[in-house]
Formats: sequence, C-alpha cells, structure tokens
Amino acid sequence: MNPVRVSIVGGSGYTGGELMRLLLSHPNAQIAQVTSRQLRGLPVFRSHPNLRGHLDVSFCTPDEVEPCDVLFLCMPHGKASGEIDRWRDVAPLIIDLSADFRLRDPDRYQHWYGEAHPNPDALATAQYGLAEVNRANLSGASLISGVGCNATAMTLALKPLADAGLIRRAICDVKVGSSEAGAEPSAGSHHPVRARTARTYSASGHRHLAEVEQNLAQPDGSALDVDATITAIDMVRGVLCTAHIDTTEPLETKNLWKLFRGAYNDEPFVRIVADRQGPHKFPDPRILVGSNHADVGFAVDERSGRVITFCAIDNLVKGAAGSAVQSMNIALGLPETSGLTFPGLHPA
Amino acid sequence: MNPVRVSIVGGSGYTGGELMRLLLSHPNAQIAQVTSRQLRGLPVFRSHPNLRGHLDVSFCTPDEVEPCDVLFLCMPHGKASGEIDRWRDVAPLIIDLSADFRLRDPDRYQHWYGEAHPNPDALATAQYGLAEVNRANLSGASLISGVGCNATAMTLALKPLADAGLIRRAICDVKVGSSEAGAEPSAGSHHPVRARTARTYSASGHRHLAEVEQNLAQPDGSALDVDATITAIDMVRGVLCTAHIDTTEPLETKNLWKLFRGAYNDEPFVRIVADRQGPHKFPDPRILVGSNHADVGFAVDERSGRVITFCAIDNLVKGAAGSAVQSMNIALGLPETSGLTFPGLHPA
Amino acid sequence: MNPVRVSIVGGSGYTGGELMRLLLSHPNAQIAQVTSRQLRGLPVFRSHPNLRGHLDVSFCTPDEVEPCDVLFLCMPHGKASGEIDRWRDVAPLIIDLSADFRLRDPDRYQHWYGEAHPNPDALATAQYGLAEVNRANLSGASLISGVGCNATAMTLALKPLADAGLIRRAICDVKVGSSEAGAEPSAGSHHPVRARTARTYSASGHRHLAEVEQNLAQPDGSALDVDATITAIDMVRGVLCTAHIDTTEPLETKNLWKLFRGAYNDEPFVRIVADRQGPHKFPDPRILVGSNHADVGFAVDERSGRVITFCAIDNLVKGAAGSAVQSMNIALGLPETSGLTFPGLHPA
Amino acid sequence: MNPVRVSIVGGSGYTGGELMRLLLSHPNAQIAQVTSRQLRGLPVFRSHPNLRGHLDVSFCTPDEVEPCDVLFLCMPHGKASGEIDRWRDVAPLIIDLSADFRLRDPDRYQHWYGEAHPNPDALATAQYGLAEVNRANLSGASLISGVGCNATAMTLALKPLADAGLIRRAICDVKVGSSEAGAEPSAGSHHPVRARTARTYSASGHRHLAEVEQNLAQPDGSALDVDATITAIDMVRGVLCTAHIDTTEPLETKNLWKLFRGAYNDEPFVRIVADRQGPHKFPDPRILVGSNHADVGFAVDERSGRVITFCAIDNLVKGAAGSAVQSMNIALGLPETSGLTFPGLHPA
Repeated sequence: MNPVRVSIVGGSGYTGGELMRLLLSHPNAQIAQVTSRQLRGLPVFRSHPNLRGHLDVSFCTPDEVEPCDVLFLCMPHGKASGEIDRWRDVAPLIIDLSADFRLRDPDRYQHWYGEAHPNPDALATAQYGLAEVNRANLSGASLISGVGCNATAMTLALKPLADAGLIRRAICDVKVGSSEAGAEPSAGSHHPVRARTARTYSASGHRHLAEVEQNLAQPDGSALDVDATITAIDMVRGVLCTAHIDTTEPLETKNLWKLFRGAYNDEPFVRIVADRQGPHKFPDPRILVGSNHADVGFAVDERSGRVITFCAIDNLVKGAAGSAVQSMNIALGLPETSGLTFPGLHPA
Repeated sequence: MNPVRVSIVGGSGYTGGELMRLLLSHPNAQIAQVTSRQLRGLPVFRSHPNLRGHLDVSFCTPDEVEPCDVLFLCMPHGKASGEIDRWRDVAPLIIDLSADFRLRDPDRYQHWYGEAHPNPDALATAQYGLAEVNRANLSGASLISGVGCNATAMTLALKPLADAGLIRRAICDVKVGSSEAGAEPSAGSHHPVRARTARTYSASGHRHLAEVEQNLAQPDGSALDVDATITAIDMVRGVLCTAHIDTTEPLETKNLWKLFRGAYNDEPFVRIVADRQGPHKFPDPRILVGSNHADVGFAVDERSGRVITFCAIDNLVKGAAGSAVQSMNIALGLPETSGLTFPGLHPA
Repeated sequence: MNPVRVSIVGGSGYTGGELMRLLLSHPNAQIAQVTSRQLRGLPVFRSHPNLRGHLDVSFCTPDEVEPCDVLFLCMPHGKASGEIDRWRDVAPLIIDLSADFRLRDPDRYQHWYGEAHPNPDALATAQYGLAEVNRANLSGASLISGVGCNATAMTLALKPLADAGLIRRAICDVKVGSSEAGAEPSAGSHHPVRARTARTYSASGHRHLAEVEQNLAQPDGSALDVDATITAIDMVRGVLCTAHIDTTEPLETKNLWKLFRGAYNDEPFVRIVADRQGPHKFPDPRILVGSNHADVGFAVDERSGRVITFCAIDNLVKGAAGSAVQSMNIALGLPETSGLTFPGLHPA
Repeated sequence: MNPVRVSIVGGSGYTGGELMRLLLSHPNAQIAQVTSRQLRGLPVFRSHPNLRGHLDVSFCTPDEVEPCDVLFLCMPHGKASGEIDRWRDVAPLIIDLSADFRLRDPDRYQHWYGEAHPNPDALATAQYGLAEVNRANLSGASLISGVGCNATAMTLALKPLADAGLIRRAICDVKVGSSEAGAEPSAGSHHPVRARTARTYSASGHRHLAEVEQNLAQPDGSALDVDATITAIDMVRGVLCTAHIDTTEPLETKNLWKLFRGAYNDEPFVRIVADRQGPHKFPDPRILVGSNHADVGFAVDERSGRVITFCAIDNLVKGAAGSAVQSMNIALGLPETSGLTFPGLHPA
C-alpha cells in the first residue's frame, strides 16, 4: 500500500518531536511536512537533536502545509479549535493534541476552562483518542482529540473498578516529571530549583479531572467522585498515579486481578504489574521512558479495606504522542501497534 | 558551664554522621567517643568525608566506651533493647535512635513487629523524642527514643486536625529519598535503578503508622484511622507527606490557619508554608536538606471538601539526628535550638 | 530466510538485557535461550522489567544451552576465555562481551591485566568487535570480542587524527554513568553517594587504554601517547570523552571537518556534531540513551592550538550490546543497522 | 563590639541568598538592608525560601540603601563599575561579586571582555578577594572584588605547582553545576534538557582563565600556559576542576604532598584529599554543598609522568559568597572563619 503521508503543525515542541520519533519507525507512515514559524528553514534536528541523521526534513511555516493523509496539530491550548475548519481542508484525518477537543460536552468545557468553547460544532464531531476507553469510535474518525497525560494515568488506574461501579470515592496522588510543562523555560522548570524537588504543583481541582469524569462516568450515569493532587518530582518523563480508593464493597486481591484482567487483557499496551515481590513488583515510570505502555497494578490495605491502584506512563508517549499514533492506526485500520513497539529501557 | 560530653555507639552510618555534624556546631556539647567495630582506629572522616578537618576523633569499639553525659545509640533495630542496661551504666541520658523504644505499649510493639518486646521494663521508662508531641515529658528524662522519619512527617501533617478531633480518616501519600534506607548498599539502592524512579515502596501498613497512632490518639482515646503509601523518588534526603483527609466537619482555609497556628506557633522548628502563590508556596523537602525544620502546609479541595495537609522534613535531621539533639537539649535544660540553627540551602 | 537463532549466556545483567531489547527489534533474529543460574526458571522480565510482555522466555542454566546460530557470552571478565572451547561447539559464531578477547596480543594482555592470558590459542582467532576500526575482519568471523565502553568513546574521539598521524599526545577526560559498573550493588553505586557526585574514578592508567592503543597504533607502528582520567557523574547511561590533543602540526576547524568526514562519512552510526551554535552543538550522551550512535565533534583552542575532540555514546549500547549486534550483522552478512535503528530520546 | 552592619545590593539572586545565609551565622555581622527592585516590599524569603523564619527583612530598592559598614554588590556584570563611586559613599568597605573588578590590569580586561574597562581609576584600588592568593592585601581594603567560581577551582588546583614554576602547560577539564548560570531561567537551564546532561559548555577560552593567569603568573613573570574546557553536568551546586599538567621536571607523589602541604597547610578552608583508597579519596563537590571548603588533591600518571590535580568547591560559596565573607573577615580584622564553619553534608 502507499504510505500514509503525515504532516505536523507545531512540530518544534516535545510532543511534535515524539510524533516524529514514533512515525519514523512506523512501517506505513511517511513524514511529509513539519511546521515551526520560529525555526522555518532549519532542519528538524535543530530542536530534536536525537533525530539528526534520521529525518531529512526542515521546518516550514503553517501556510506552506500541503494536502496530506493525516495532520497532527501540536499547538498551544485554545488555538486549534479556532483554526480547525481550515485544517480539515488539508487532511481527511486531524489529530489535535491540545486540550481543545477533549471534552465532548461544551458545558463541561465551560465549567473547567472558564469560557465558552469557541467551536462547539467541531467539538460534536471529535473523538477522544484514548483507545482503552473509546476504541470503538475511533475507526473512521475524521477529528480525534489527544489525551491529557495525567488524565490518562488516572483513567487507566481507575477504570476497572469504575466500570464495575465499585468506586465510592477516589483520590489520585499523581507524581509527574518536568517534561509535562513543555519545552518553554519558566521559573518553575529552572534546573537549580526543579531538580531534587518534591513540590506540590496542584493540591486539588486539576483540569485533567474533567477528562477522568468524562472517561469514567458511573454505571448509573452520575459523575465519579474523584480528586487529584499533583506533585512535581525529579524526573524528566513519567507519570505515576497512586489512586487511593474507597470501594462500595470489600474487595480482595483476587477480585482485583479479575477486574484488571477483564479490563485490560486484550489491550496491547496495558500491562498488569502486581507481583508478590521484587523491586519491580509495582508500576514504575522509570522503565517506560519512550514506550507506549501503561503499566497498572493494585494492592489492598488489609487493615482498612482501602484499595490502592497504580498507573505509570510516559507522559510524552502514552500520555500524548503515542496515544495519538495509536488512535491514527485505529482510525485508518492499520495494525494498532505499528510504530509503537519500543519496549522501554532498563536501566536508564 | 562544662561542656556536655557526648558519645555515639554505632557511628559509621548516616544518623551517626549527622549527629556529629550537628553536635560540632552545638555551643555546649563536646564529642567524646564514637564507635564502629568495623572501622576501629580509623578517623571518623573515613565514613563521613564532610567532617574531614572538623573532628579529630577516631572510631573505637563499643567495649572502649567510657562514662559520659549523653550516649546516643545508632544501632540496627532490635539491638539496643537487649543492651540497654549496660549502657545506662555509662551515661545518665541515653538517646536510642532505633525503633526499639518508640512504642510505649509492648502490645502495640508485638502487633507491629511480630514478636514480644525484649525489654518491657526499660520500655516503661522511655520517652518518645519528638518535642512537638512529647516535650513536657522530655525534661529530665533518662531514656529517650528517637523518631521514625516517615512517622514524624505524618504526625506533624496530621496533628493540628487530629488534636481537634477533626479527622474521620487520613491517607498519607509519602514521598521519600534514598538515604532513608541507610548506608548499606542493596539491590533497591543501586544507583542505576534507584535514580529517576517513582517506585511504590510500601502500598499500605508501613510500621511507622504505629508511631502515628500513638502520637495522635483521638480525643476520645480511640485510634486514629490512618494509612500510608510510601513512594521512593529520586531524592537523597527528604520526606514529603501529602495527607488526604476526610474531616468530621467542613473546614475552610481560615479554619486551617487557626488550627495550624494554634498547634505550631510556639514551635521553634515548625514553619507554616501555605502561601497564596509562588513556586515555594507549599512545603518542599528540597530546601530542608541539613535543616531541623519541619515545614507544614494545607489546602482545601473546594469541590469535595477534602483537606490536604503537607509536611516536609529532612529524614536524617528532623526525622532522626536533629530531633534527637533537640530532645537532648530539652532533657538537659539547654536552649532547645542549640546546634540546630542551620537554615537549609537554596538552591541545592 | 530462516531467522538467526541467538542464545545468551549470562543474561541477567545489563548487557544481556540490552542484547534482548535490541534483538527483539531485529528483523532476522530470534532469541532462543537465555541463561542465569540464579534466576533459573524465572521469566526474563524478572531482571529486565522493560521486557515484560515482549519476550516470553525464562532463564535456563548454562548446561541447558542448545546448539544455535549465534551465542553471546555476558560473563564476568576472566570466565569466557576458560570456557570458550565448550561454547564453540554450541554455535558457529561466538560474541564474547567480556574483556577476555579484546587484546590481540597476549603480551599486552599480561601487561595490563597482570597475568598470562589463559587461552592464547583462542585469542589468536578472535576479532575485535568495533566495526569502525575492524569491519573488514568481522565478515565471517567465528569469535568476536565485544568492546570496552570507555575504549569505544576514546577510540572514536581520537581515530580521525590518529589515523593521520597527527596526534603527538592525547589526554582523554572521560565522564561516565553508573551503569558502567554493572548490575551488582556496591558501596560506590549506593544511590545516596552515587547521586549528585563528580568523583574521580580513575586518575590514570585505566585498562581500557590498552584497547585504545591497539585500535589506534600510530602510522609508523609505534604506540599512541594517550592517557585517561575517568570521572563518575550523576548519569545512569552514557560516556562523554573529552579528548585534549596536542597535534603534530597546527590544525584549523576546516581541517578537522575534513578529517572527521573522511573517517566517518560512511559509518552508519557515527554522527558529526560540531555546530556553530545551539545547546546541542557538541555531543551529549543524554540524547543517545538506548541508541547505537556515537556522536563525535571537535573544536580548536585558538589561543594554544590545542585540539579538543568529543565522543558521546551509550555505554550499554554502542559501548557494549549495540556494537555486539552490529558485529553480528556484519559477520553474518545482514544489513549492518538491523535491530539498531532506535534514534534515542529527547528530552529524557 | 558593635555588630558589623551589612547591606546587599541585588539580593534576590543565588549569591545574595548565600550571603544572607552565611551572615546569619556570623557572630559579628548584622544584615541591615537587602535590595531588589522587582521584589520591593516582599520578605526576602520570597526568593530565598530557606530563610523563612530566619531573617525578618524585606527587600527595599537600591535608592533606599542607608550608610552601613559593609556593602555587598550582587549586580549583573558591567553594572557595579559604573556605579561604584556612589556606593563608596555608603560604606567604607565594598565587596563586589560581579566580574567588574577581578582583573587588575585594564588591558587584560579589554582583551577578555572586548571593551575598555569603564572605571580604571576604581579598578586600581580594588583587591582580588581570594584569600589564598591575595590575603596580604585584603586587610584594610576598601574595595574588594569577588572571585569567579571556575577561576577559583582552577587557581587552587594549579597554585602549588605554579608557584614553584613547575607547570609547563596545564589543561583544566572543569565539571560544573547548573547554579553557576544564576537564577534566571534560560533554554539551557530548562530541567528536561539540563538534567542527565554532560554538555560541553565552553570548549576553550573561558573568561575565567584571565583570572587564573592573573592569580598564577609564572615566577619569571610570564603568563602561565593554561586552558580550560567546561562541561555542564547534572549537579546544582559544585565545580570539579581536573587539571592535566605537563610539568617542567618529573614529580613523584611525595613531591606533590610537599608542594600541597607547603601551599595550603595554613589555609583554614583548603583540605588536601589524596588518600590511597576509599570512595572519598579524591575531592568531590558533592560533600561541599553549602561549605566554604576547597578540597584539593593530586595523582601522578606513572606511565607518562603527567600530573593530575583536583579542586572541588561549591560555586556559590567558596566560588562566590563564601570567599566574599572570608575577604570581609580579613579586611575587618575578624576571625577569618567567622560565619563559614558549616562543614557540608554527607550524604546529600
């Protein structure tokens, strides 16, 4: 078959770089154009030094983008929704990695983002690009939304219990790396203060919770009771969600095995990591750097009955570019794991 | 006045090294002897390279310890309780930094450690060495127990609400550095796997919870409902306890200010860090390395009413050697902050 | 064609794990057996957690190894040379990753390792497995030696000038990560002391210099004048060699471009990184983690005429498992880059 | 005696923060005023969170500075030299931590900074504030220049051999932490790219060499032949200079002991670290964080006769604020170590 011609708008950031890295190993994809107003004319390895020698493409401007098969948008939040009609003329499949099209319901968007969604008509046609919760609707989609990285980790940690209506209340204590905030330097990302830190980035009410609520509505249709605290730790890539769950009924470890196997045994990128012993018995984002895996696990507090579940991902892969490529594969009918087989590194 | 002569049994580890560092800056203390069977005859800087040129003492064996004013015991858990009578002949004040004398109640010890306490008579005379919960009993004590590092962070995060009977249930999500496990190399402390990690070290039921229960009994005498999950992160020193609390009645931020000020305003080493903004608005163990401070803070989740409280410490100082020196100061009637004024470093 | 059946003796360490990771992505290779006496019967992901779900193989003992096409030996230094005849019966191509067969000359081995080589007959048949210096002899080889990681970085930093007889004297200041010392914990690898360090590991006379001398004999046959200082820094994977070179004649930047292009333009894994500006203008091992690239670069000190050259690699890949797979490809007539196309990550 | 009243102009940066930390423990000093235009009116702990509760001072503007005993200037390079006359009216002792007054010779300044020195008259009265090379001239000085951090490490590594005329040529391979670049975020200091790096920051010709040349003129008055390569590594504070030295005559280890002891035995902050064995046998900046020590050491390459010397410091202390306080002590006739007794931390 002819290769799928893929272009990227806003390709100088971390998500754009990861898309290129993944697509380079994709047997059916070909990278056509990549835009950056600021780096126009320069080779892409200028901002993605790992791609030196791997991809002979230079940045062009958004105005120069030509028709292609798939267009990834990696623009700042709030930008894609205003331009989306223009891009739909360029490609039959748009995958937007910003937050603009993640929330199906314009009211939910207004509630969490504090303003009306600028393009509710487009929103109505968008599909949420996390295969584990929306695979059925991705096939043949024309507009797919990328995922929030913390939302992905929370969703996958909670999903097996949530789908079974077993969660009374969940608190997600999420540990995150510095690449979550993107490629732009800031006071908080300055190495002398960002290294060695354990800093509470968001005590409660993080916007990604809106996605989790949407992904995991209760069986009776009500909203899941879930909150999150996000702590920045000394890690570049990675999210570890530790979910503290009050269940509606007592659960034992064997119940959790059954729930997690039921939820994930057919998922190509979700691994259950809940061994009895060993240093790697629970999910650890350290071994997922570069990989599209989501590792999930669980434990039961025998004193209180509390259930603890875990999900570790690479925020730039399963939490962004990897899920986007996975969604593209599903949308186009390609093998779902194409371009996504890198297993991660140990040690690293 | 004559200087207080201090000796240390088991001085080659991290806690022993920190005791020496602190005592060197103590205006009333003089380090007499420090033991290490393995390093006998070698200068103490062989295992504590920072002390080179600061302390002209060589390790002796425990058999060579002479009478002194204060004796710190830094031996593996389970050892001090068997030898305590011997050491009480050496010094009128013993401060044991192991877990042997932390739990007042032998039954509680048996419950958490799985065996009978080897010396319940001595246990009955021991005082728990965390000034913030037991200052009144430290004055004039002859046997003081050191604290658990995670227990200290959890206790100080929860105390203001616990003392007021406001906690229905608390879950402590604790992030810890690698020095918690001591100076002995192990598979889990190997740099290639311990660096960059976010690894669940204990999902629930950590032994330090026994101390927290003891420190924070409910006003009605019942046990506090508290559990903990401990995650190892890429940090050498430091504990951050993020406590997720269900309260017995709704609380606002102003209530929390009042509770925390009431609990800690007279405490020389507890700082309330709960600013409205800024990168340092919540406690961060990064700036506490080397310091005896405990930084505490709080937030309210306006959606759910959950209260989040924080406590950051240096596990080797406030969580071990620093609290021990603070207890010594109180026991001997010295100024409580002597030897403990180092403010921490920023950046570092 | 039939897949190449590959087995690994001593597969529980870091080098064995990387071999498996690389071979998993190799279009022509199939992993047959992997040995570990200690982990016999356990799945390989027990020591290589990244491979969970990727490789359904359990460790067997060395005694259970069956005939195969290629056998990699990842045993401690000194072991393979004694057993080599046994293994040659198992496979027509042996690739030994220890130091046993790196030095062609038994006298050189005796000089650097302080004892006679245990198997000089086998040594005479071994080929050094660094394609950039010995490609011509690898085709059809039956016994290939792996490379020293520091030796690889030093060799590739110096080769363009050495081959031209332009080096009067070279000093390699080499910065290394913690995975160089392998998977076995030790006092020096303990995270609390290995993190944040800049520790001189070897001031001079490192054994890998013997390889460099062998790789880069002067055009007149004399030994290259080269020494090295090795510093351990807070990095898990990676080597950066900064070579300070006195040249036999003055060189300008344009001469260096010509020399490096001449040496490396046909090399599939060597990239010249010597830009005029930008944060990535010189080689940095940070972006090579997991990759088989060697990035080389250079600069001229205009005041003194000193030439500085650089080489960055991942010690476990180009400095070990990657070069071994590359050598296997050449020996078997497979495409040289098979299994080695991972481009590295940025950021990470 | 009355306390020495000290004010700081430009106190929101890392050097200003360290000055305050050190002066807080100084028995004779009192911090009067600290300026920051941007943070005017805010407490100093807003930018120096470690000082919360230790120093009850708020930032004022430079215009509000009142007469005091000692004034530290921590302004960007190039600013102090233009304003110096104004500040001399404020205090009888000015200590400027910028590069403006480091080079005595205006021609040398012009050569290295590319423009004429703006205030050669003031320059003629300035004393270089590194006690180890200029102690005799600091007593009673009225204008003292701070030191360059890399210059300090290089100077102290080379001084014993340089003073004896034993250096034919020296190359300093310097490893540096991220705090060297100050508190202002930049593309190079962004955590995702600054962590885990080993990046050549300056291949040759670093400006701090001008200070080294000035500090270490050859006994015959000629310039020392010295160059430097600076590599940024994953460290917040710290400099390790590894000096590769060709000597004018062969030296043995015992000669180096004699030279280093002769140079430094009376120095209160220089420790010779050159043990036969142990993980801490050579200088390591890891244990110097927060300390004013400079640890120096040496080794001889027995094959080539090359001498390797080392110097490790904390760039913000011995390389900036600590040397400044030490110079103040000498200038005012106070005990030289006042305020500078913190021994550093291990582990940390």
